Amino acid sequence: MELRRGLLMTTFPIRIALLGCTGSVGRQTLDVIRHFPDHFRVVALSARSNVALLAQQAREFRPDLVTCFADTPEIEARARAELPGVVIGEQGLLAAATHADVDIVVAATSGLIGLQPTLAAIGAGKTIALANKETLVMAGHLVMRAAQRAGVSIYPVDSEHSAIWQCLRGEQNSEIRRLLITASGGPFRSATPEQLRSVTVEEALAHPTWRMGPKVTIDSATLMNKALEVIEAHWLFDVPYERIEVLIQTESIIHSMIEFVDGSIKLQASLPSMHLPIMHALAYPARLPAADSGLIRELSWPDLARLNFEAMHPERFPCFRLAIEAGKRGGTYPCALVGADEEAVDLFLHGQIGFLDIAQLIEAVLERHHSIEEPDVATALEACNWARQTIRELHKKYT
Amino acid sequence: MELRRGLLMTTFPIRIALLGCTGSVGRQTLDVIRHFPDHFRVVALSARSNVALLAQQAREFRPDLVTCFADTPEIEARARAELPGVVIGEQGLLAAATHADVDIVVAATSGLIGLQPTLAAIGAGKTIALANKETLVMAGHLVMRAAQRAGVSIYPVDSEHSAIWQCLRGEQNSEIRRLLITASGGPFRSATPEQLRSVTVEEALAHPTWRMGPKVTIDSATLMNKALEVIEAHWLFDVPYERIEVLIQTESIIHSMIEFVDGSIKLQASLPSMHLPIMHALAYPARLPAADSGLIRELSWPDLARLNFEAMHPERFPCFRLAIEAGKRGGTYPCALVGADEEAVDLFLHGQIGFLDIAQLIEAVLERHHSIEEPDVATALEACNWARQTIRELHKKYT
Repeated sequence: MELRRGLLMTTFPIRIALLGCTGSVGRQTLDVIRHFPDHFRVVALSARSNVALLAQQAREFRPDLVTCFADTPEIEARARAELPGVVIGEQGLLAAATHADVDIVVAATSGLIGLQPTLAAIGAGKTIALANKETLVMAGHLVMRAAQRAGVSIYPVDSEHSAIWQCLRGEQNSEIRRLLITASGGPFRSATPEQLRSVTVEEALAHPTWRMGPKVTIDSATLMNKALEVIEAHWLFDVPYERIEVLIQTESIIHSMIEFVDGSIKLQASLPSMHLPIMHALAYPARLPAADSGLIRELSWPDLARLNFEAMHPERFPCFRLAIEAGKRGGTYPCALVGADEEAVDLFLHGQIGFLDIAQLIEAVLERHHSIEEPDVATALEACNWARQTIRELHKKYT
Repeated sequence: MELRRGLLMTTFPIRIALLGCTGSVGRQTLDVIRHFPDHFRVVALSARSNVALLAQQAREFRPDLVTCFADTPEIEARARAELPGVVIGEQGLLAAATHADVDIVVAATSGLIGLQPTLAAIGAGKTIALANKETLVMAGHLVMRAAQRAGVSIYPVDSEHSAIWQCLRGEQNSEIRRLLITASGGPFRSATPEQLRSVTVEEALAHPTWRMGPKVTIDSATLMNKALEVIEAHWLFDVPYERIEVLIQTESIIHSMIEFVDGSIKLQASLPSMHLPIMHALAYPARLPAADSGLIRELSWPDLARLNFEAMHPERFPCFRLAIEAGKRGGTYPCALVGADEEAVDLFLHGQIGFLDIAQLIEAVLERHHSIEEPDVATALEACNWARQTIRELHKKYT
């Protein structure tokens, strides 16, 4: 089955390695594949620790390769018992990422675990569907350079970058005047500093429009998540920070926009859904008939009735400001940012620090950081680990 | 100067014949050209009767050819006096449309006068920037077939079709699920039939978001204009009527949208401006830096704050329903529709009939019409003239 697009063509079935198959994006990727069985084939599945779900997925999709990172010997033992032939540890991820029969590697692991496999997949000439934020934030310079060298495409999987990518079809990066990345604003977009001081974990986890894991939900409440998206957009679309803005779009219907140099603006919209950006990355340049088949719900504009837009006030969101600064400074600042944020959010989720302490701890870490320019992977990971440790030390010291 | 877009390329300066140079679109086309003197050159200017403005434009842009349709001997005499070398009558339009040095013909005449010159320009291999509605409504089958045969592109110049065209860049017509053509709804979008009965000419001319000539403003109030846009979109984008919908977007900021088969929706936005669709048609595929230079005002989303969407209720707008029916029936029905509407709107503007009589007269004419399938140009014009005359007879008979 072939779909021609001028010179571009999608040849189905597309053969997929799915790294992070038991996480939220991983499971929704399998929803898309389940919905279009003639269009996709799962060649490799990689999970971290959820052996039961991995085994169930393996029975359903019958991949050639199943791998499990297995943080502990118990998980490894369980994986070996349930999944004969399973490959354990990082070598499993690397084997999946470079499997000879794979066309697209979906990089949907969380945290730093995905960086090396993504670079390996690029080296092996695989198209990357990138759902992992840390990869570009920490190593955008390495990833984009490697992709260019290998002639490999990096397709974004989150809704904001997918929106920009869709609006950029048939357009030129050089004719972008501004990227307008939309944000729901999270639960505290109108909160005063006083109100923010007493935010509880439950309040911070109550996101108005999207259902996500706890770490990214807290990152959405601090707008750290939005700043990481700005850094990603900078790398993905080769647009300087000065031309990337964040705009509050309360309903999360407009997923982002491009303003072109002629003043024309293109927007992409849908009801909030991760299936859509996943599907777009898997099938590009084809669009699959997911609206009539019910995978994507139809947006009724008269029922929606109204879209609201507001300026984002960076002064209310210190994490946003710190992250953009780290992005602009470059070097290992973004790596320290990622590590510091992971650790600070973890402390908040465990009730050990307040909501506003997240930014204060991250700022203290970034102030102490000695950045190294153009870090390689080891240096990037080291800066990240240094920041995690420094957060913990600072927290111990002041409590 | 060359701008490459994959295989597409714009070679500047682009050489332009402007048919209808003294009308609203014609003057705004010259604004764009004046703004980008290195990108465009005016080769031919054609006006109907405004000799004073034509002479002024000719002095400024120094075209190789100036033509004047000159409805009366007085206008012809004035044109010959002021413009040595002017070509008079339809042969002037034809000469401009087929001038050897012209790349793009901007067809911005009003009414039926533009049909023959547009077909002649297509025959001569010129790209068409089409601002004239009647051309596609009356002769879409002839124009699109001729364009396909000649390998010529038809670029739309109004904001709705330009929005669809922009959203379609890098996409496939076959992956369109629905075209959503937006409408401000005009001044009477929430009026009751009782209120509509007593509408005055002044009320109907008070359009909430766009400033246009009187005929098109009345057509906007009856939503006839929107139905003509649906018929145009059907021809331009080869989309069946069943997949074209009209949606009220009160602020006229979203100029239209495409919903694709995967459920993703792309929208195009700007402050209301004709300069933008004109510029896009002239420079395509390039986008010119008109935002920084001030020709196109920047849209501030936080200042805008809100976009409103409503369903369009066709039962409130009988002209809309009649026009869509005429479009679907095809043959010479759309030609009769155009003639009947021109005449009925003229009667309304002269205070001779009421607002609701416009639709009633058009309906009576369409009921009496004997349609001819696949009309040629002469047959199309004849059906249009028959409808004008029939409106006048019906009006005389019943008053």
